[in-house]
Amino acid sequence: MTYRDAMTTRARSRERRAEIVRAALDVIAERGYRGASLAAVAERVGLTQQGLLHHFPTKEALLVAVLEERDHWDALPGRRLRMDLLTALVEYNAMRPGIIQTFSALLGESVTDGHPARAFFTERYDRVRASMADLLRAEYGDRLPSGLTPERAAPLIVAVLDGLQYQWLLDPEAVDMPGAFRDFAVLLGEPVP
Amino acid sequence: MTYRDAMTTRARSRERRAEIVRAALDVIAERGYRGASLAAVAERVGLTQQGLLHHFPTKEALLVAVLEERDHWDALPGRRLRMDLLTALVEYNAMRPGIIQTFSALLGESVTDGHPARAFFTERYDRVRASMADLLRAEYGDRLPSGLTPERAAPLIVAVLDGLQYQWLLDPEAVDMPGAFRDFAVLLGEPVP
Repeated sequence: MTYRDAMTTRARSRERRAEIVRAALDVIAERGYRGASLAAVAERVGLTQQGLLHHFPTKEALLVAVLEERDHWDALPGRRLRMDLLTALVEYNAMRPGIIQTFSALLGESVTDGHPARAFFTERYDRVRASMADLLRAEYGDRLPSGLTPERAAPLIVAVLDGLQYQWLLDPEAVDMPGAFRDFAVLLGEPVP
Repeated sequence: MTYRDAMTTRARSRERRAEIVRAALDVIAERGYRGASLAAVAERVGLTQQGLLHHFPTKEALLVAVLEERDHWDALPGRRLRMDLLTALVEYNAMRPGIIQTFSALLGESVTDGHPARAFFTERYDRVRASMADLLRAEYGDRLPSGLTPERAAPLIVAVLDGLQYQWLLDPEAVDMPGAFRDFAVLLGEPVP
């Protein structure tokens, strides 16, 4: 195989992976976490299950790729995340239960010993806590109105985001996820809306 | 079978169930969620796996029984939960990762469609939000210092408790779970410790 052929093969494989990840997102949106089987995704992209396994050896590996891609699309350029945009993101999340269910189910599994998604979530939270601290520092300076530093408030924002998702997924009628997050923003020091 | 025999059989079965649940808690503490197989629990109580299945048809059913029993033991008589006791409970939880891991993993699974633990968690959160609202009303009256009602702050306490557990389980060195919960209590209106 020439260098050029090898590059073409690699580019094709990357493209195929991206196509599979997009198809998986669609299947998740339609059928939820349980319905997002490798077989369903393979069918969607016109591959055999064996062909899909060549790109993603397990369901977990595919779902991690979907969640990475979602983080990529949700990210704002130049760290311009603000509390009001975060609130808007929570409202937006309340309209896409499939991906939130997939995130929450995989996060739950990932805390068990030796789970394949554990490294992804551990690194993700490290990064997300740091970017929440940046957001809070840009909004409030070195101390929040409550006296907390941005670094100490950051894990609380992340916890509220995740924790509310579980309650909302279990009982969407009983839990107003965006409203509860706006309440938390007020606790942090945002003006009452 | 006489009435008395039937009662004895039922009492024995109850006792056996309780013994299995205690054994499961021990196995969870030693080996975590993944290690807590029905086979391991059966061995601990001197039953065959078939014998165990007579009492608990699935691993999920056994784990739900363990979590129900934990809620029972953690509960305080006469609704006398207070913010400072809740903080103490978080400190205590940080010493028992096995059961917290089991809780968090099962909560994660439970949000998927048709999961056997879904009803347990949905009802549990309904109850826990109500008892958190009672706690907050006893502590602050009808409005917290931030202006939130107890009913609106309750899902936030629950979310912080659950969300911090995930971050802490993934990276116990990076996340000070009890410290972060104390910070949240300050946001709600507790005096700075």
